[in-house]
Amino acid sequence: MRDVFDGYSRFDELQSDLGIAPNMLARRLTSLVDAGLLERRRYQVNPPRDEYVLTPRGQDFHPVVLALFAASNRQLAPPDRSMILIDRQTGAEIDPVLVDRATGQPLDQLDVMFAPGPAASPRIRARLAAVARHFASSTR
Amino acid sequence: MRDVFDGYSRFDELQSDLGIAPNMLARRLTSLVDAGLLERRRYQVNPPRDEYVLTPRGQDFHPVVLALFAASNRQLAPPDRSMILIDRQTGAEIDPVLVDRATGQPLDQLDVMFAPGPAASPRIRARLAAVARHFASSTR
Repeated sequence: MRDVFDGYSRFDELQSDLGIAPNMLARRLTSLVDAGLLERRRYQVNPPRDEYVLTPRGQDFHPVVLALFAASNRQLAPPDRSMILIDRQTGAEIDPVLVDRATGQPLDQLDVMFAPGPAASPRIRARLAAVARHFASSTR
Repeated sequence: MRDVFDGYSRFDELQSDLGIAPNMLARRLTSLVDAGLLERRRYQVNPPRDEYVLTPRGQDFHPVVLALFAASNRQLAPPDRSMILIDRQTGAEIDPVLVDRATGQPLDQLDVMFAPGPAASPRIRARLAAVARHFASSTR
């Protein structure tokens, strides 16, 4: 996946295009840098100018943004959508859907639940067991 | 997809299991109700007791939670994971991945971008055109 910030990472560009106050943008970018999702790079020393690129960790969270976009857009009838997602190569509209990697089955057609992983603490195990009991006693 | 809150929706249950302060839980549930993601139902009048169920809108956002879970878990080596997602029917571990509904292609192998939808305002069109120009001039 191409970096969403690819070729579009400079503070000044982001600021003018988003049309938000510089101090607000600086605060948000700093919080994303602090979270390890963006890396700040100085591309010009005098005057100092920074650009921001997604870290590998940031790239891992790109699908979350796309899933959020898809869920939000699905609240609107197609004629009411201001933005759509397209494949840059073909121009075709993309409808993101979450599937299981191994089987390709859409998750909304599966009955999924959280279960303890290898590093589950006793507290996590107890919580998940409680959830499983609630599920089991559910009448639906 | 089953409701994540399915059979596990009562305030008292959520509170005791999450182990957070009742006023904190009440505030969070109210913000989810206000956002239209949860519906509050009184299941007992005396004393008053409420349960919370996902609205259709809330269900639409379920994949976002799962995508966030998957992206977070992917930051950890498998032995370090406290929770995994499983198929309740088969017990198999599920690895959620975002694909295009029509072609089944994983989005991380596509070159996707946002484009104006039918309801795009002139402002949105101008922003997206600026993004497209930045993409086009990118050297990557």
